[in-house]
Amino acid sequence: MSPFPIATDKKALEEGTVLAPRFDANGLVTCVTTDAATGELLMVAHMNAESLRLSIESGEAWYWSRSRAELWHKGATSGQIQTIVEMRVDCDQDAIWLKVSVAGDGGCCHTGRHSCFYRVQPLREPSARPLAFA
Amino acid sequence: MSPFPIATDKKALEEGTVLAPRFDANGLVTCVTTDAATGELLMVAHMNAESLRLSIESGEAWYWSRSRAELWHKGATSGQIQTIVEMRVDCDQDAIWLKVSVAGDGGCCHTGRHSCFYRVQPLREPSARPLAFA
Repeated sequence: MSPFPIATDKKALEEGTVLAPRFDANGLVTCVTTDAATGELLMVAHMNAESLRLSIESGEAWYWSRSRAELWHKGATSGQIQTIVEMRVDCDQDAIWLKVSVAGDGGCCHTGRHSCFYRVQPLREPSARPLAFA
Repeated sequence: MSPFPIATDKKALEEGTVLAPRFDANGLVTCVTTDAATGELLMVAHMNAESLRLSIESGEAWYWSRSRAELWHKGATSGQIQTIVEMRVDCDQDAIWLKVSVAGDGGCCHTGRHSCFYRVQPLREPSARPLAFA
């Protein structure tokens, strides 16, 4: 059972003060995580109702790992715990934004990099042009 | 037919220079769009292969509207065209990051606000605590 209510109408969803997440068919919302100090985009992940509740109540980022199909307390093994400085929800409540400060070595990506977004796609060129490392 | 290749292995996916997006069962990747000047998170949307190709080749943001089930040239009717300053892809290539500058009145959200993320969830409290407007 989700601990969250369902918005009764579009106005409640978009202009209300009740968190009523619109989980998708897999029970997930998208979560965008940025560095609270620099604003840099660190990662995009997913949350189910339980990870969202845990994140709110603990103030640390909990996700749902789709590959492992389990709750994922980010940093529990790596030490890269994400303390949530601010949490926001979008207009239609299917996306969450976490501004976090990262403990441990400050990293986020499983490849060892600070951010998961380390490659740049060239623009106004054919889409087959190679990616560049940032 | 997607104009994009499929990565042959995890190393090619994560460390390669070939854009090989991992579209989900609905043929979509998640797209995070931030303001190139301020770093503010503006919106989260989705792209199919065609909208991703159009975005790369035109340098303007094209999304896939799930509610209307059609290609969505952001700003075509509102004037809020998003010129892409930089496009990045994440480690496992299922998310795209656009840094954009917004034309027209500079808005993004269909509610008339600059960003879709205008409500804040209180933390370290029961998850039923009301949202605050930012």
